[in-house]
Amino acid sequence: MATNAFVKYRKKDFPTDEIRRFLEPGPIVLVSSAWKGRMNIMTMGWHMMMGFSPALFACYIWDQNHSFEMIRRSRECVINLPTTELLDIAIDIGNCTGATVDKFERFELTAGRATRVDAPLIEECYANFECRLLDGSRARKQNFFIWEVVKAHVASSPKLPETFHYRGNGEFMISGKTVSRRSRFLEQNL
Amino acid sequence: MATNAFVKYRKKDFPTDEIRRFLEPGPIVLVSSAWKGRMNIMTMGWHMMMGFSPALFACYIWDQNHSFEMIRRSRECVINLPTTELLDIAIDIGNCTGATVDKFERFELTAGRATRVDAPLIEECYANFECRLLDGSRARKQNFFIWEVVKAHVASSPKLPETFHYRGNGEFMISGKTVSRRSRFLEQNL
Repeated sequence: MATNAFVKYRKKDFPTDEIRRFLEPGPIVLVSSAWKGRMNIMTMGWHMMMGFSPALFACYIWDQNHSFEMIRRSRECVINLPTTELLDIAIDIGNCTGATVDKFERFELTAGRATRVDAPLIEECYANFECRLLDGSRARKQNFFIWEVVKAHVASSPKLPETFHYRGNGEFMISGKTVSRRSRFLEQNL
Repeated sequence: MATNAFVKYRKKDFPTDEIRRFLEPGPIVLVSSAWKGRMNIMTMGWHMMMGFSPALFACYIWDQNHSFEMIRRSRECVINLPTTELLDIAIDIGNCTGATVDKFERFELTAGRATRVDAPLIEECYANFECRLLDGSRARKQNFFIWEVVKAHVASSPKLPETFHYRGNGEFMISGKTVSRRSRFLEQNL
């Protein structure tokens, strides 16, 4: 039972073709998975958008991570977007292995039920993106996965999350203000 | 000849195995290319790190961009990192096509000579990463390219760039402060 001080964000369904709003800026995400009755979480910074509709998302998962085989075999995961309150927990999640640690229990995180996959949602994250494997043909060779995001849950408030972005060497960039240049864009380039 | 007010950053060689410092946070980058005597620039937000040594970087380039064939055929490009002074120019670069416009000329940007590729450096950008195509086998089918960064040039000052990160719908997140959590990491996870 979670007893930590972190908010469980109240979320609404969100259009999958608009998830770039949260993922394209390049935040650190937490990847949750489930396989044979076990759950796990890993911290990830190497990812990118690859399409709007269907919503495609690609990532690199090092094959030495315990999550690698869980994700590759289950062909599912959830991409969870943490805010800066979870910065230290995101580091600590990377400092231990799911081979010996139940990370939901150790970090008092709440595993919520997803609607389209068996992998759990992390309720303390601002957003959760349920993913099914679209293309795992380069998983073994290049640690590269392409996912279809089949369901998105995003917090109703605040309107935008404060996220953290890794620079290596233990340093993080914290997301700053958002500015609109909408009127400068050609409509088809928005 | 460039007559705009933008700084041409003075740069030093930078270790390619440390470029995550600038690319992993997920900024918008400008991709410069050269093919058959023409140069071009495109604005790009869909990219990710894929390795340290060799330094690998992957990206999605829509095949409707004029740059697509220039990059695919030349098997080279330069990834240039703009700071917020260039935000409006980055949008305008996306609003026109290299099929009819010389973007270096129109935007008064300075094409510098790269050392390991024929594609030009954009001197007004904070950093330039010279890339050679490592794997283009999914370029036609998935618009996906994997690059080896063979040379990196990074400004001596400021220590960190203020970058912009796209949220879609004409909105950008501006990079905020950087914080260190070095002492919290296990050494092998830094």
